[in-house]
Amino acid sequence: MADTAQAAHEAHGPVQASHQEEVMVPHLVTALSKGAINELEQRLLDATPVIERWFRLEWMEHTPPLYCAVDLRNAGFKVAPVDTDLHPQGWHNLSPETLPLAVQAAQAAIEKVCPEAHNLMIVPENGKRPAYYYASLAKLQEIFHMAGLNVRFGSIDPDLKQNTEVRTPGGTTLIIEPAQRSRYRMGLEHFEPCTILLNNDLRDGAPGILEDLHEQYVLPPLQAGWTVRRKSRHFQCYQDVAKRFGKLIGIDPWLINPEFASCGHINIHEPNGGECLRTNVKAVLAKVRRKYKEYGINEKPFVVVKADHGPSGMGIMIVHDLKELDEIGKDGAQAKTAAQVPAGEVIIQEGVLTSERINDAVAEPVVYMIDRYVVGGFYRAHAERDADENLKAPGARFVPLPFSSDAHLPRPGTTGGPASTNRFYMYGVIARLAMVAASYELEATDPELAELAAA
Amino acid sequence: MADTAQAAHEAHGPVQASHQEEVMVPHLVTALSKGAINELEQRLLDATPVIERWFRLEWMEHTPPLYCAVDLRNAGFKVAPVDTDLHPQGWHNLSPETLPLAVQAAQAAIEKVCPEAHNLMIVPENGKRPAYYYASLAKLQEIFHMAGLNVRFGSIDPDLKQNTEVRTPGGTTLIIEPAQRSRYRMGLEHFEPCTILLNNDLRDGAPGILEDLHEQYVLPPLQAGWTVRRKSRHFQCYQDVAKRFGKLIGIDPWLINPEFASCGHINIHEPNGGECLRTNVKAVLAKVRRKYKEYGINEKPFVVVKADHGPSGMGIMIVHDLKELDEIGKDGAQAKTAAQVPAGEVIIQEGVLTSERINDAVAEPVVYMIDRYVVGGFYRAHAERDADENLKAPGARFVPLPFSSDAHLPRPGTTGGPASTNRFYMYGVIARLAMVAASYELEATDPELAELAAA
Repeated sequence: MADTAQAAHEAHGPVQASHQEEVMVPHLVTALSKGAINELEQRLLDATPVIERWFRLEWMEHTPPLYCAVDLRNAGFKVAPVDTDLHPQGWHNLSPETLPLAVQAAQAAIEKVCPEAHNLMIVPENGKRPAYYYASLAKLQEIFHMAGLNVRFGSIDPDLKQNTEVRTPGGTTLIIEPAQRSRYRMGLEHFEPCTILLNNDLRDGAPGILEDLHEQYVLPPLQAGWTVRRKSRHFQCYQDVAKRFGKLIGIDPWLINPEFASCGHINIHEPNGGECLRTNVKAVLAKVRRKYKEYGINEKPFVVVKADHGPSGMGIMIVHDLKELDEIGKDGAQAKTAAQVPAGEVIIQEGVLTSERINDAVAEPVVYMIDRYVVGGFYRAHAERDADENLKAPGARFVPLPFSSDAHLPRPGTTGGPASTNRFYMYGVIARLAMVAASYELEATDPELAELAAA
Repeated sequence: MADTAQAAHEAHGPVQASHQEEVMVPHLVTALSKGAINELEQRLLDATPVIERWFRLEWMEHTPPLYCAVDLRNAGFKVAPVDTDLHPQGWHNLSPETLPLAVQAAQAAIEKVCPEAHNLMIVPENGKRPAYYYASLAKLQEIFHMAGLNVRFGSIDPDLKQNTEVRTPGGTTLIIEPAQRSRYRMGLEHFEPCTILLNNDLRDGAPGILEDLHEQYVLPPLQAGWTVRRKSRHFQCYQDVAKRFGKLIGIDPWLINPEFASCGHINIHEPNGGECLRTNVKAVLAKVRRKYKEYGINEKPFVVVKADHGPSGMGIMIVHDLKELDEIGKDGAQAKTAAQVPAGEVIIQEGVLTSERINDAVAEPVVYMIDRYVVGGFYRAHAERDADENLKAPGARFVPLPFSSDAHLPRPGTTGGPASTNRFYMYGVIARLAMVAASYELEATDPELAELAAA
């Protein structure tokens, strides 16, 4: 698992070149680009005041995660989130022009969480990480420093025994210090943080050092870590959000929602160990086929099978045809196919094609948010992958989205269209819907709320 | 008075050329630029977390005006606000790159004031205005539209009887509609605004149509209009803020505070009508002279006499020497000098030199804020004026400040200096101090708070 995770992380390089690249609105090459997606876009633009009001009211009732990055896929006929990261990396891939937006959003976040704060401690991922990860950490530190906080890194890695210097590709030196724990608080030498910002997805569990910190804010909360979190719960919440939102602006929620199903612990090496997978792959493919037919979409439906917990990019299997599953679990199963099936709980998600291209490379947008604001994004592009493949893989490149200017804002009196900068307003709306879903998800798994409900 | 106001307004043109101009950090030409101001700047940069925390705590107790523009003067040895506009125009002079910041701040403002809003009504200035005013209105509409509101213009001008189309220099057409009043609400046909945003400084008083709107938010509140507002009250509040802030970061408040005094109704044409003016000009000049001596500043102190109410740029007199006042009120007074003395209540403010230049033109920064955020700014530059003169005059040009990127944000690990982009962090801090003062001022004149206090 560690190896796969590492591979997924390395997908984030090379990084430096991307900033130099010219940013443009990718051209949608699908034949459908003049149809459904422009209609959806236009509907969103027309409904801007209704949409923004809806978000404001949502955020009165629910708390947005402190930060969040959402992978989107634009198929030309639908746009949907496919992954919501609550411990986002890749901050260094954002356009430098978006920095003031991120800082302003960080100020708003601090004001709500801990206005009296001087200090923020960021908990990075454990272990030695590739250089680009430290570039991302450095950017995160810069954002919160500019928002007016002293920022230091406190590691919860039990193997980190002393202060460790790491260098970013940009030449910045960061100091990672071992976090110290007192009875009720966590901190560093001469450093009492008010808020502890986790940039560690806790895939190996929340260690004791993070427990019972009742005097400090730990954000995102521990249940956002991958031992508690399940992708299927997130997409269940998202489905509910998409239904309500679809009703609000009068669209079929499927246009923004990927169908999914999930299986508990599967083990394809046991007899009937693949049954649940088979049943659900079949069901999701059937749903998607019906929708394709309804909209006259001449594409082959497919599903993506992923581990239901753990970061994206790990152990992903793409299935176009039920027959591909036939060999799984049988004697003589192709080792390759079997190896791709994630172990344990899985989510079977409708595969959403990406019809965007940057210089012929397949691309998908990733939208970054802090508090309730869209603060930037980039295209993840991969020259050696196809429109139905996972782009979070070695060889991916990153092209900052032009959120830097006003591209993510609705333009009054203009229309959408393949070359429209309004595209990014649509992306910002869909990404924020995923953020609303994340806030529901974190409420549903909040141990304190559960205690209250039980009492 | 209308003519002077008009002249002040026309000072805002020409506008279009300024956007094309290259934006740079003006070079401070004063010999002192390597001294005091860099020290002040460095102090502010070092104290960033303390400063930002201080602002956060202020905004927990006080409500920032919805928007605000502050004229600053950087003398090379001190930086001070000289005018705080609570109904700012000139939005079109901001760099287009700052738009997302303004929109994000507007979203934060709406969320606090009226989250359930669909509609916002902007009340423009009365009468026919020069084209650049409509360019500013169009930009304001754009900002709040992009923040997710339907925005229409409702005029309170009794002479405006029907919908009127106006064109901006950029070619946009705006529709100004006569505001309609029902018993408790104000609005337009088929348009129920939740918030009424005044871009009208009510210099001729708050008309009845604006009274008793208990079901809607009128922002800024009526007491921000010039019949109630007094510059001397603002600068009294600012002085208190500067003292506390000076203590916080360990600086002499004079480095950020312009000395001032005020006179009630003066009439220089009456016997002894100029006495108060004379006494106070003398007192302020003496204070400034002492400070110049203390800091070894080899400049001639001067004061600016302005009407205590009414927009800036109107009826301003600059006095370097008490002797200049000798002729005033006497028979045979020079008509020119006497005409410059504002009638009625006056404020006598320490003149703050501006040591900034753009292509040899004297320049002063103007900082724009929405809610508690700095969202942009520009340099007001005037080629035919001197460092001790008012630049708000016909012939002024506008060069957007590079707030567009991260220039207004404190850079970790870097220092200030004449060419430093950190200059704008300092300007943002001083402008926000003036905004804090404005919030105190509006509380002090709030009729509802006065009623509560009396009860």
